[in-house]
Amino acid sequence: MNKRFVTFLPAGVKVEVVAGTDLLTAAGKANIEMKAPCGGDGTCGKCTVHIKSGAVKAKRDSHLAAKIAEQGFNLACQTLVQDEDLVVEIPKTSVMSKNQVLVADNKLNSGISEALSNYLLHVWQLKELLLEKQESPLNGYPLNPLCRCIRLTLPAANLQDNRDDLNRLTLALKKETKCTDINISLPIIRNLGETLRAAQFKVTVLVSEVGGKAEIIAVEPGHSQQPLYGIAVDIGTTTVVAYLLDLEKGRVVETAGTHNRQARFGDDVISRIVYAVDEPDGLKTVYQSIIDTINTLITDLLIKQKQIKEADIRVMMAAGNTTMAHLFLGISPKFIRLEPYIPTANFFPVVKAQALGLRVNPDALVFSYPSVASYVGGDIVSGTLFTGMGNEDAPISLLIDIGTNGEMVLGSGDWLVTCSCSAGPAFEGSGITFGMRAMYGAIERVEIDSQTYEASYSTINNGKPIGICGSGLIDCLAKLRRTGIIDRAGKFQTSLPTERIRIGDTGPEYVLVWQEETDIDRDIVISEADVKNLLRAKGAVFAGIRTLLNVVGFELESIENIYVAGGFGNYLNIPDAIAIGLLPDIPIEKYKYVGNTSAKGACMALLSQEAWLEANSLAGKMTYIELSVGNLFMDEFVSSLFIPHTDLTLFPNISL
Amino acid sequence: MNKRFVTFLPAGVKVEVVAGTDLLTAAGKANIEMKAPCGGDGTCGKCTVHIKSGAVKAKRDSHLAAKIAEQGFNLACQTLVQDEDLVVEIPKTSVMSKNQVLVADNKLNSGISEALSNYLLHVWQLKELLLEKQESPLNGYPLNPLCRCIRLTLPAANLQDNRDDLNRLTLALKKETKCTDINISLPIIRNLGETLRAAQFKVTVLVSEVGGKAEIIAVEPGHSQQPLYGIAVDIGTTTVVAYLLDLEKGRVVETAGTHNRQARFGDDVISRIVYAVDEPDGLKTVYQSIIDTINTLITDLLIKQKQIKEADIRVMMAAGNTTMAHLFLGISPKFIRLEPYIPTANFFPVVKAQALGLRVNPDALVFSYPSVASYVGGDIVSGTLFTGMGNEDAPISLLIDIGTNGEMVLGSGDWLVTCSCSAGPAFEGSGITFGMRAMYGAIERVEIDSQTYEASYSTINNGKPIGICGSGLIDCLAKLRRTGIIDRAGKFQTSLPTERIRIGDTGPEYVLVWQEETDIDRDIVISEADVKNLLRAKGAVFAGIRTLLNVVGFELESIENIYVAGGFGNYLNIPDAIAIGLLPDIPIEKYKYVGNTSAKGACMALLSQEAWLEANSLAGKMTYIELSVGNLFMDEFVSSLFIPHTDLTLFPNISL
Repeated sequence: MNKRFVTFLPAGVKVEVVAGTDLLTAAGKANIEMKAPCGGDGTCGKCTVHIKSGAVKAKRDSHLAAKIAEQGFNLACQTLVQDEDLVVEIPKTSVMSKNQVLVADNKLNSGISEALSNYLLHVWQLKELLLEKQESPLNGYPLNPLCRCIRLTLPAANLQDNRDDLNRLTLALKKETKCTDINISLPIIRNLGETLRAAQFKVTVLVSEVGGKAEIIAVEPGHSQQPLYGIAVDIGTTTVVAYLLDLEKGRVVETAGTHNRQARFGDDVISRIVYAVDEPDGLKTVYQSIIDTINTLITDLLIKQKQIKEADIRVMMAAGNTTMAHLFLGISPKFIRLEPYIPTANFFPVVKAQALGLRVNPDALVFSYPSVASYVGGDIVSGTLFTGMGNEDAPISLLIDIGTNGEMVLGSGDWLVTCSCSAGPAFEGSGITFGMRAMYGAIERVEIDSQTYEASYSTINNGKPIGICGSGLIDCLAKLRRTGIIDRAGKFQTSLPTERIRIGDTGPEYVLVWQEETDIDRDIVISEADVKNLLRAKGAVFAGIRTLLNVVGFELESIENIYVAGGFGNYLNIPDAIAIGLLPDIPIEKYKYVGNTSAKGACMALLSQEAWLEANSLAGKMTYIELSVGNLFMDEFVSSLFIPHTDLTLFPNISL
Repeated sequence: MNKRFVTFLPAGVKVEVVAGTDLLTAAGKANIEMKAPCGGDGTCGKCTVHIKSGAVKAKRDSHLAAKIAEQGFNLACQTLVQDEDLVVEIPKTSVMSKNQVLVADNKLNSGISEALSNYLLHVWQLKELLLEKQESPLNGYPLNPLCRCIRLTLPAANLQDNRDDLNRLTLALKKETKCTDINISLPIIRNLGETLRAAQFKVTVLVSEVGGKAEIIAVEPGHSQQPLYGIAVDIGTTTVVAYLLDLEKGRVVETAGTHNRQARFGDDVISRIVYAVDEPDGLKTVYQSIIDTINTLITDLLIKQKQIKEADIRVMMAAGNTTMAHLFLGISPKFIRLEPYIPTANFFPVVKAQALGLRVNPDALVFSYPSVASYVGGDIVSGTLFTGMGNEDAPISLLIDIGTNGEMVLGSGDWLVTCSCSAGPAFEGSGITFGMRAMYGAIERVEIDSQTYEASYSTINNGKPIGICGSGLIDCLAKLRRTGIIDRAGKFQTSLPTERIRIGDTGPEYVLVWQEETDIDRDIVISEADVKNLLRAKGAVFAGIRTLLNVVGFELESIENIYVAGGFGNYLNIPDAIAIGLLPDIPIEKYKYVGNTSAKGACMALLSQEAWLEANSLAGKMTYIELSVGNLFMDEFVSSLFIPHTDLTLFPNISL
């Protein structure tokens, strides 16, 4: 096979690939994470590159690629290496995060840049991490971790008491744990004789007890005061965060976060499923990718806490949406995507870390949060646990987590209903001209002067702007409406006296930042098409809330608490979100930011058997409402495509 | 490393080894199974070879090796390959069985010789195998195998019934099996979505149900009438026998048997334990060796039954003594050998075939018979099950299995006591000048004329005699005593008028076969030292029986049935065994040959959950009597070192 070198600028990273490889794949090989929300299908137009030298070939004809070519760029995913070595420049707008830019600038080696990437990942996340260290992660539950040390002194064997070793051990454990069903695997039994005798029948047993069943994780000689750690992982579609927990003290010791490496197969779960199902070895690749991501985090945690070793990690808890849970365990996600949207499993088996290839103690047990349905996953169950909204006597509350889908749970101690509406990835930046994830340089706040129509903005970490993230988009929409730049249906008033409103390639648009102020080579704009996309997204969420209420026969006013979850939710401007009709118009004091509840609930379950059992009980009792059945949701959706809504009585406090 | 060739005659098999390798190891590499009861320690003197060309070096000085060298021979285990290629002749007396001789004669290739070896293995075994094909292996238990096919038609998923696949499956299985605890492993879940949909939610589930718990072995699409087979294995220290069972018809389809390849680490369990514990990687080697043995048998079974594939074997049941069970599962047997003789486990976990490397369906479940103590293993529990002596209302019975140890169970429906007495391997031929296993050419019956003191004999398969097996030795002892050649204490009457009685290297001896009639280069004799060894062996067994009776306060006459088990037992001449005081002097009609009960019980348990549960219940209720505690056994042993016994009132029917 013909091998060719591709050098990526400005990083100067050189990789060898076979002729016929596309440049997105080549960049991946160079550890450059390019944006590719469409998963390399050539439809999102995010992975633009500039060919500095060498001949390339287009994968296929495409209108989008042609348009980009006019501007002197190529789509990396659609451009194939031929018989020549290439030099390819990657614009900053095409890479995933600041760290790649830093690498590109050759200021830092990749090891440091990885750490820095985690550091820069996002402010909200860092804030949360710091918060966690101070607050108890138990959130009111008793400390009773999923894995504990039992120190036993067994009666020594002799000719009168010649019971076999295993019996001697399990009898003592049954007494200690009150479990009647004790499971111990063959590898532990194999050397049990030596283990018991190494310290005269004093042993430390690591055991996981859940609901009267005990699983022995390890048996070790003596009564050593070995450390006992666990890791809780929140597997987000975009971001993966890991918490290192001291199981005996019940506290968070360290945290780490990074991008989900599956991003190269697409931004959203659907692209990942398509890749896993349609590509050769797709499932294996996507599965390995999330395992690699988590292993990177584990390494990161253990670098920061040098006294803790891989072998000290005895148990893990993963929470993520249903697709992530499937991919994490290597379960085919195929039918999640196809009507009638059936997941293979909602409750997952506990497996050993070595079976998944996780770099902790090979015998560590790995628990996965249960899901409710294909689009209501363990992350939502975890959030429900964290809010306590399913507790006895809890008032009617709504948990809402807005990402690609808007997932929500409505209920009280007596009942819980849940649904997921396809909000689309607009709030995550996908499908929006200058949309981007909440990263360095993303615009997160926007003000527009109602007289001059001039914009001001703030960005994450005050970087020079390169795009607009979800909270910035909602701000933008609210301000465009408030200043009358758009009407209730999202249509631009092109006659207003400002050069910021103009007709762009796709129709009317508003210039938020002039090119000179940006870190890119274009003006940052929001177009009428972008606004329509955002209206569809917010409309879907509001329609979901209304549908759930309708199913159980309650009104908006019945809701006593609205828990806004997720990294995005944390930076949402609630009045703006109400103003555009994304969230219900109820008193602002009923709203509570709850942050990354998926991660928090994962920590709780790891530290408390009671919390874990409650999580399973919640998953079992949540009633899933399939929005595609009947017309209820669709009617609500159509009514929600205006700012704030067709029915203005629903938003009595919003002045137009 | 220096590589040298060693050519073994008469086979003409050439192998390459590094200088410093001993010839026993080299022979092993050439697939020649030499006798080495001591496990290559240089103490048994069985592995004699003749160096035809090339220089060798002795491993160390030894009296035995020196004595053998005087006769122009070397001990293979004590002779090291040096800087020259060697030609080494192996006498017939040094190899394990006829098949090697056949190979040596170049009459058959090794593939056929392996099959022939199995054929010739032993007559009793073959007879048993044939018997099994005609008799029901269920022995009165209901056909209800440890693995069964459940054919389900699940309700198809739709938007109204959108339960996850796993839930859909397990709910149906709970109904079908009445099991509340259903376990399914991650690998099966991974592709469950496709499996259920491949034949529109019609599936065949292979499930193993035991005591209210179900383990799913496989889920396959459609209602295929796939075959369902299991294999029961009797792992004897010497011989391993496998039975291929049709689980749905409840019958034996095929059988195969071979030597336990662990024999090269020594004849008895102690040598194997020493090797496993003391040698580098010893446990791994000994473990792999039994797995290889069983895999050979599986291959053999499937060659004979070509329509059956590895993947069709869904479940296995192994029965063997406690050491064999430990080694089969790779559990260290170290403490079995050391006082207070504690096995690591008596009840073993069910594991997947792939975890052990067995060449059947990788997901097949492997069950192991429970043991009672270090020297009362699953083979005895299996035998107890087979005899039904633990059934309600069963009269007092004795099960006795004589091998290296004499293991016995005494009891009725209400109670069971058991013990193991170290009979030593005399009846297996070890420690006896011309002792050998029950193989082609072994003398199994002996007559001595009381006038002329001339001997007549018969051999297994009428081969020219090469040694004496256990039943032959007992015959011999009885006849030597009956003709007055030895006295009650085993002392030779050297003054009798026959040249067959003479003084040999080790003292007085009786010539059973003159060299001309043999297939070896010496007279076959039995010496006074051999007789003393045999008296110790028979004394230990009888003392064990007396001790058990004593513990429970019964007399010999209380015994209603004596079940004589094991390959050896099957060919025992009961009147002779009573005459020498090996077995109690009770009416001969109370004796029953029960054959290889270990294998029979393994088949029963595989075919019937009820039998398996009963086997576990029996193992739990058998009280183990440790003979080394107190003086009871030792007193009985000393009294039993005479023919038939010190106390002649115990043998009223034996005339001296």
